[in-house]
Amino acid sequence: MSEITKLTKQFRVDHGKDFRLKDHDPASTAHLHSKEHAKELLNESILRMAELQNKLYAQDQWSLLLIFQALDAAGKDSAIKHVMSGVNPQGCQVSAFKVPSSEELDHDYLWRNMVRLPARGHIGIFNRSYYEEVLVVRVHPEVLRGERVPPSLVTKHIWKERFEDIHAFERYLSRNGILIRKFFLNVSKKEQKKRFLERLDEPEKNWKFSAADVHERGYWDDYMTAYEEAICHTACKQAPWYVIPADNKWFTRLVVASAIVETLEELKLHYPKVPAAKRGELSAARESLEGKTAKSSDRKRSSRPLVIE
Amino acid sequence: MSEITKLTKQFRVDHGKDFRLKDHDPASTAHLHSKEHAKELLNESILRMAELQNKLYAQDQWSLLLIFQALDAAGKDSAIKHVMSGVNPQGCQVSAFKVPSSEELDHDYLWRNMVRLPARGHIGIFNRSYYEEVLVVRVHPEVLRGERVPPSLVTKHIWKERFEDIHAFERYLSRNGILIRKFFLNVSKKEQKKRFLERLDEPEKNWKFSAADVHERGYWDDYMTAYEEAICHTACKQAPWYVIPADNKWFTRLVVASAIVETLEELKLHYPKVPAAKRGELSAARESLEGKTAKSSDRKRSSRPLVIE
Repeated sequence: MSEITKLTKQFRVDHGKDFRLKDHDPASTAHLHSKEHAKELLNESILRMAELQNKLYAQDQWSLLLIFQALDAAGKDSAIKHVMSGVNPQGCQVSAFKVPSSEELDHDYLWRNMVRLPARGHIGIFNRSYYEEVLVVRVHPEVLRGERVPPSLVTKHIWKERFEDIHAFERYLSRNGILIRKFFLNVSKKEQKKRFLERLDEPEKNWKFSAADVHERGYWDDYMTAYEEAICHTACKQAPWYVIPADNKWFTRLVVASAIVETLEELKLHYPKVPAAKRGELSAARESLEGKTAKSSDRKRSSRPLVIE
Repeated sequence: MSEITKLTKQFRVDHGKDFRLKDHDPASTAHLHSKEHAKELLNESILRMAELQNKLYAQDQWSLLLIFQALDAAGKDSAIKHVMSGVNPQGCQVSAFKVPSSEELDHDYLWRNMVRLPARGHIGIFNRSYYEEVLVVRVHPEVLRGERVPPSLVTKHIWKERFEDIHAFERYLSRNGILIRKFFLNVSKKEQKKRFLERLDEPEKNWKFSAADVHERGYWDDYMTAYEEAICHTACKQAPWYVIPADNKWFTRLVVASAIVETLEELKLHYPKVPAAKRGELSAARESLEGKTAKSSDRKRSSRPLVIE
């Protein structure tokens, strides 16, 4: 696993203060040049993740919240699909946050996210999240009016306040056993164009194309500024961002998988230990199953006369 | 209304720092000596509250969260019943937080509260709340184990952390249009005893009696300390506590009602103003209703030949 850990470290942002997006190359593949080797590493990570998820679920104390944010066509959906396909869906829920419903708009902006927070022992995946409130809403501030926040509360401090509130919210979650890892899939403008064209050219990708996405491309620089500031204000040790090169999907997936494995390893998960008192229960259950003694519960359910051996 | 405002001011705690419970007399009735006069004032407040709630609902921007906390038999239920009985239940929801369900325990402690936050335009009443996490859980720290917070996160800082998290959560809510007012119904130990005995003596009150409540009475001083510290750390301008004398129910109700009216008055609520563009629509609708013109929608629905007047 050490190769994997080495890989994630350079993309992890623990202290946002001096973060600059321009220091991060969307096309980087770090020291890895063989796509084949990367695939082997990814498969290893996926197997390890499944083992760790089993323990997470059995231990039933911690939960893991994975937040995916990116511009269109950066590969969020495919990263989630390829990285998470090895986990047991009983302990893993994906929530995709699209344009808010009218019920959601009736509430504060964290509400729809809070409702879907992972339960103990579970992995929750947010495909987009409350971060949209300092990204798309910031790039298009007219969206705020649709949110019906009382106008007297919408001041020039609103983004600073939102950063502060999100930071405090994540601090609260991490104090209560919900680990947070945030992934920004950093795609280049050039690669996005290429992927949009593929969506137009390849019939089986047509369904993914939306003219609105091309329109949003016009706000590229605004989005970059918004992402940079969001990461600046909300990257911290207990809720780090991973700024992941996204021009090569095989590389993106490997880094995401590695970061998740690394996070779960740090928890030192283990299957719950059976307390001494309960060990007696287990022995009694074994004896009962093997027919060595008769428990009252067997007696009740038995339709045959009871024979004490 | 000025008499009412004068009444609430002395019980409102905007800055918790130097708050001491011993400075608050549970038997106080302020300058009011006539129960009859108090009832008149209460009725006035209830009528005014209904008017204000109508505007709150129509304006659909602000919401109001009222939190009631108290020891047993302090009169939470009856205060809610008597004060809120004039409001339209379509815009007012009461959530009573009892022992958490197993689904609730699977989540962080704010989760079950968040889910029930009032929508815009609504009044939400929390009969008990997340404050129990720094009250009953503090008095009986063994409850924490049942919450399955990972043991490594349960340190000596846990209460300080919870105060900080609650404070930040309430700041977030108030920034997003959810006004918070918190009521501690301050009953004396002597009056509680009297009310418990009534529950035993009067057959129609028997259902309210619980032996567990009498047991909790044994922790009276611990509860007083926990309440004092909770108020100390969480009373602030945007989410004040009202420490309300609760030995006289008629007085408790009046102060609660007054505080709610006062809060809603401060919002300067008004029915939504119709924008100029929409005024044209209204005139057109009037003409259509009065049969002066024929709108295309009438034409479609009409089964008779259309006559232009």
